[in-house]
Amino acid sequence: MTVTQRRARSESAKQQRTGDLLDAARLIASNDGVRAVTLAAVTQAAGLHPSAVRRYFDSKEELLLELAEHEWSAWSSALVARLDNGSDLPADAIASAVTETILARPLFCDLLIHVPLSLEDGVSLDRARQYKTTSFEAYDAIVRAVASASATLTSSAATDVISATLALTAYKWQVAHPGPILAELYDLVPRWGHVALNLDADLSRSIRAMIAGTQGSTP
Amino acid sequence: MTVTQRRARSESAKQQRTGDLLDAARLIASNDGVRAVTLAAVTQAAGLHPSAVRRYFDSKEELLLELAEHEWSAWSSALVARLDNGSDLPADAIASAVTETILARPLFCDLLIHVPLSLEDGVSLDRARQYKTTSFEAYDAIVRAVASASATLTSSAATDVISATLALTAYKWQVAHPGPILAELYDLVPRWGHVALNLDADLSRSIRAMIAGTQGSTP
Repeated sequence: MTVTQRRARSESAKQQRTGDLLDAARLIASNDGVRAVTLAAVTQAAGLHPSAVRRYFDSKEELLLELAEHEWSAWSSALVARLDNGSDLPADAIASAVTETILARPLFCDLLIHVPLSLEDGVSLDRARQYKTTSFEAYDAIVRAVASASATLTSSAATDVISATLALTAYKWQVAHPGPILAELYDLVPRWGHVALNLDADLSRSIRAMIAGTQGSTP
Repeated sequence: MTVTQRRARSESAKQQRTGDLLDAARLIASNDGVRAVTLAAVTQAAGLHPSAVRRYFDSKEELLLELAEHEWSAWSSALVARLDNGSDLPADAIASAVTETILARPLFCDLLIHVPLSLEDGVSLDRARQYKTTSFEAYDAIVRAVASASATLTSSAATDVISATLALTAYKWQVAHPGPILAELYDLVPRWGHVALNLDADLSRSIRAMIAGTQGSTP
């Protein structure tokens, strides 16, 4: 085997391992929430020796930030495809497209609050810069597609709507996914559960209101 | 000293200590953020022996949840006083009152996301129930005051506006308070900083849009 062949083989093995670790993290986060992800759990689930993981990721934060980056691109592609170069779409159609595509990605919804809270600032400057670059590309593509598909939203109004969508989803997703103590309390006091757990209807109503209110107030 | 006198004195000493611990936690959270609060740091700042703190709080979560409870009541009182039994107020006046009173309480803004993420589910069922009772009383008083002061918002529209306000504030506050890595990145790439750091203008514009959009869509 030549040096070039050996390098190629080792590069491909490394990519395979990186992919295995990301898949394991995705599975743990989907089953038990992003908070349950630890490097030790991920390494064990991927069948690697505990000491091996550091060759691929410096920290849990770096691993989760890479998942968030993938999720940004996937949400952007799905929403742009859903709007399908439409034009003159009414507010309701835009609101449904935004709400349904983001809620179809529960891992993204869960990661959203962890990004500013601990992930972006838990990695190196270069890694944070790469995340910002990818996520802003995805964000900009979404804003362009929404503004161009909508009958009424300007580009700056579409920016406000997507920025509000991130905030509404990040917070309301956490509220709608209580741990065991809260879940028990919601059984005991149904009104509290009703306020917390109607994520789908609640989010789509808020996003619809944001679109209606933003198009009314932005020239 | 009688038994009753001794009990009264010990009860008052306990209240004093509890207050000292809450003050110390408030100070640490205000200076360094809620994430910097640990029982050890709070105990040291309050001048107590490390082993003493457990007589007053079972955990950091219990202590922070008590601060959040105080903040809910304080925000509710401030906003109700600001609306001052007004009526027929336009959307802009309501939006300013909501935005300014919540941003005047940075500890509340910071705590908001930690409540569903780790605080409510990190305490006993009884303690969580007490938090829910107090925070819903404050929430309900705010919704009543907003609906009654507004020229256009029904009670259910006011509920949607306040629920969105909590989400928008919880997320955007964290984004607007980056750690050192992100702060450095925002200096290097001003556009990213511009999107993240304009909390005041951004929040008041979103809340105004929510009010305009909700009053338009709710009968």
